[in-house]
Amino acid sequence: MVLLWREKFVQLMAQDRPRVVIVGAGFGGLTLARALRRDPVEVVLIDRQNYHTFQPLLYQVATAGLEPEEIAHAVRGIFQGRRNFRFVMGTVVGVDWDAQAVLLEDGDRIDFDYLVLAAGATTNYFGIEGAAEYSFSLKTLEDAIALRSHIIRQFEEADRHPERIREGLLNIVVVGGGPTGIEMAGALVEWFELVFRKDYPHLPMNRARVLLVEALDTVLATYDERLQQYARRQLRRRGVELHLGDPVARVTPDAVYLQSGERIPTRTVIWAAGVRACPLADRLGLPQTRGGRIEVEADLRVPGHPNVFVIGDLAASRDENGRLHPQMAPVAIQGARHVARQIRRLLQGQETEPFHYRHRGTMATIGRHAAVAELKGGLRLTGPLAWFAWLALHLVQLIGFRNRLQVLINWAWNYFTYDRSARLIFHIQPVPADYLPAYAPPQQTTTEA
Amino acid sequence: MVLLWREKFVQLMAQDRPRVVIVGAGFGGLTLARALRRDPVEVVLIDRQNYHTFQPLLYQVATAGLEPEEIAHAVRGIFQGRRNFRFVMGTVVGVDWDAQAVLLEDGDRIDFDYLVLAAGATTNYFGIEGAAEYSFSLKTLEDAIALRSHIIRQFEEADRHPERIREGLLNIVVVGGGPTGIEMAGALVEWFELVFRKDYPHLPMNRARVLLVEALDTVLATYDERLQQYARRQLRRRGVELHLGDPVARVTPDAVYLQSGERIPTRTVIWAAGVRACPLADRLGLPQTRGGRIEVEADLRVPGHPNVFVIGDLAASRDENGRLHPQMAPVAIQGARHVARQIRRLLQGQETEPFHYRHRGTMATIGRHAAVAELKGGLRLTGPLAWFAWLALHLVQLIGFRNRLQVLINWAWNYFTYDRSARLIFHIQPVPADYLPAYAPPQQTTTEA
Repeated sequence: MVLLWREKFVQLMAQDRPRVVIVGAGFGGLTLARALRRDPVEVVLIDRQNYHTFQPLLYQVATAGLEPEEIAHAVRGIFQGRRNFRFVMGTVVGVDWDAQAVLLEDGDRIDFDYLVLAAGATTNYFGIEGAAEYSFSLKTLEDAIALRSHIIRQFEEADRHPERIREGLLNIVVVGGGPTGIEMAGALVEWFELVFRKDYPHLPMNRARVLLVEALDTVLATYDERLQQYARRQLRRRGVELHLGDPVARVTPDAVYLQSGERIPTRTVIWAAGVRACPLADRLGLPQTRGGRIEVEADLRVPGHPNVFVIGDLAASRDENGRLHPQMAPVAIQGARHVARQIRRLLQGQETEPFHYRHRGTMATIGRHAAVAELKGGLRLTGPLAWFAWLALHLVQLIGFRNRLQVLINWAWNYFTYDRSARLIFHIQPVPADYLPAYAPPQQTTTEA
Repeated sequence: MVLLWREKFVQLMAQDRPRVVIVGAGFGGLTLARALRRDPVEVVLIDRQNYHTFQPLLYQVATAGLEPEEIAHAVRGIFQGRRNFRFVMGTVVGVDWDAQAVLLEDGDRIDFDYLVLAAGATTNYFGIEGAAEYSFSLKTLEDAIALRSHIIRQFEEADRHPERIREGLLNIVVVGGGPTGIEMAGALVEWFELVFRKDYPHLPMNRARVLLVEALDTVLATYDERLQQYARRQLRRRGVELHLGDPVARVTPDAVYLQSGERIPTRTVIWAAGVRACPLADRLGLPQTRGGRIEVEADLRVPGHPNVFVIGDLAASRDENGRLHPQMAPVAIQGARHVARQIRRLLQGQETEPFHYRHRGTMATIGRHAAVAELKGGLRLTGPLAWFAWLALHLVQLIGFRNRLQVLINWAWNYFTYDRSARLIFHIQPVPADYLPAYAPPQQTTTEA
């Protein structure tokens, strides 16, 4: 039966074209699959979800500003009508290097001529006690829906049992003062101020606290000092309580303990403190950095595997000074375009070229009319201008005209009405971010064919 | 602690106003809570979800035509700024008739002066073997998301393992030829034809079958004969296989068995064969019909309980000839308006009036440009005109300008692009439609106060 499928598969794919297998439909994998549109290769894109998630806006789904479907796009929809493309929804659990095949959870194998690993990153809890068990992470759409539902549930419970507020029902702790953490914290206070204040007229809203905990002495540590100051000031002015220079010691079901000894009662800890390469990387037997990223040559190929590339958060690619590239979307997108060019060169018998990441800037939004932007050439923006730039940039990058239109309408609605429409509680079970099924024993179906 | 809350609760609600407790935020409960806006009563609306669901469009969420958030509206959002209103998210597990209090799952009690039961209906499996275990029902938003995800998963599996199609992967069986069943069947073939044909170019789409199974010899049995014929013809023309006059004998995980002995291999059975009053009704010790509906007087009050009303699908209200009213939204909405008037009359010491349901017509859509409508005065419509009337009517009835706008955009998008945007697989766990927690022992907190 597997035989039958393999025959059919091989038959449907144009013969003799080298097959490029891409693991992961994030920014890197998707960009690469699109870039290879007209190339004489067969592209097989594998992802455990049937959709691409626009991760930079996940925090808006978690805070009811956007609906889940608006920041996701079905992979098959993106590639409709593409001849040299095939999508496989499945979880990659390993690679058979000898047979040059990717192994799937259910025992299936997919042969490759070129392999591009673009499986991204998961949450890094740095081994802190209780963090993985009792924190919410924000890497998938289901994470975001689960977090949204959880927060609303706390308010519903507080509305019926105000005496339980002192147990920390309305304390939301965001761990991590990077862009993700401050965007989350800013969106939370806005949600509470603009919507929950009206939704729960009987609740003492001054007891709904958003606390940002950061090990360093500042937020946005990689940004210019002036932008850091602006961000700290804006966060404080909007009601975010900053706990700087005090790392998390441990997390329990009803509190966060800081290294200073402070105990913050809460049922909602959002972990935005760091990322780590996805656990698949640990299974491949390839050299890794401390954060699990796979070591690559200057051309993004894996040493000793001339037909294997790694891009995005999973790749330990470095700049001229040997510093690791940041784990953010533009690196993945540029890496994908680079790999498309290198595959073309290899097919034509040419040598590969080194990857040069061009940093164009970074941005983070704090809330209505407040954002920071650090652009190429030293240009720094704060305030409404940076905020509108942030909105425009994210809107342009969203995939699909329809998603863009919907997000625009939703943002406009939220902006003018001070409302949030997506505040529904769903009973959803996210797959843990670091879940990886057991290694399936390789079945020798290839030899049967 | 509960004491503290109760004091606060009582204090916040205007003193001495009689409290109307409404169980269920469906069409009936919501309409009633809105109708009592300016009345000298305190309204407490209880629902297990924090949102109202526009059930008539659930099948469009299940077939990826609409996004879940578009047909739902947060209850608190609807009543923002209402002084005499309070929402309680919780599951009602019983009523303490002696103490005149509603009992919640977690042991809380809510006293009432007037009680309106509007908890609606659940799926009726008529005791058919395996039906409850192995069928999908379509009563909640989570049901719809789970069904959508399940169907897409079958296609993903079939794409990787075409040899399994013969196990029924691509057979979708809809049980029931009423409006719900034919709308579902029609939407399914459209989804497959317009979207999956392009999404899965390697799949033999002629093997994706939609089968409608109905015990009677026709679909839409309560409609005019001419409309029935039109519906059967349209369904067949669009590719729905009609199995009429052949009731379901039993359902297994991989097949449906009909009474004729026919076995239809399938993993997807959608149960649209009937409804039954929600299981709360069975706990109240009140006289019920065979379908579990609570017997009511002509004024919708429960015999022997002059301060308790029942409306909507839960009420065994009858017309002049003693026939039960149909279980559909207009009956619930008109019943709610009637009850609002009766509560006003009772408050003013007047006698109650009997409820008269005014039937304005029924409609059902089969798919693009095809619907049937049976209007007051014998007017019957089929085809594009009925279809546009159906669209317009449902759009108008949707709650909230923003939901309407979004649904309009989505429908327009689907209509002109022949696309479906919401085809994402979520890992969601719906609460079974007939789930009701164990009876919580009444805590005597009231006496402590």
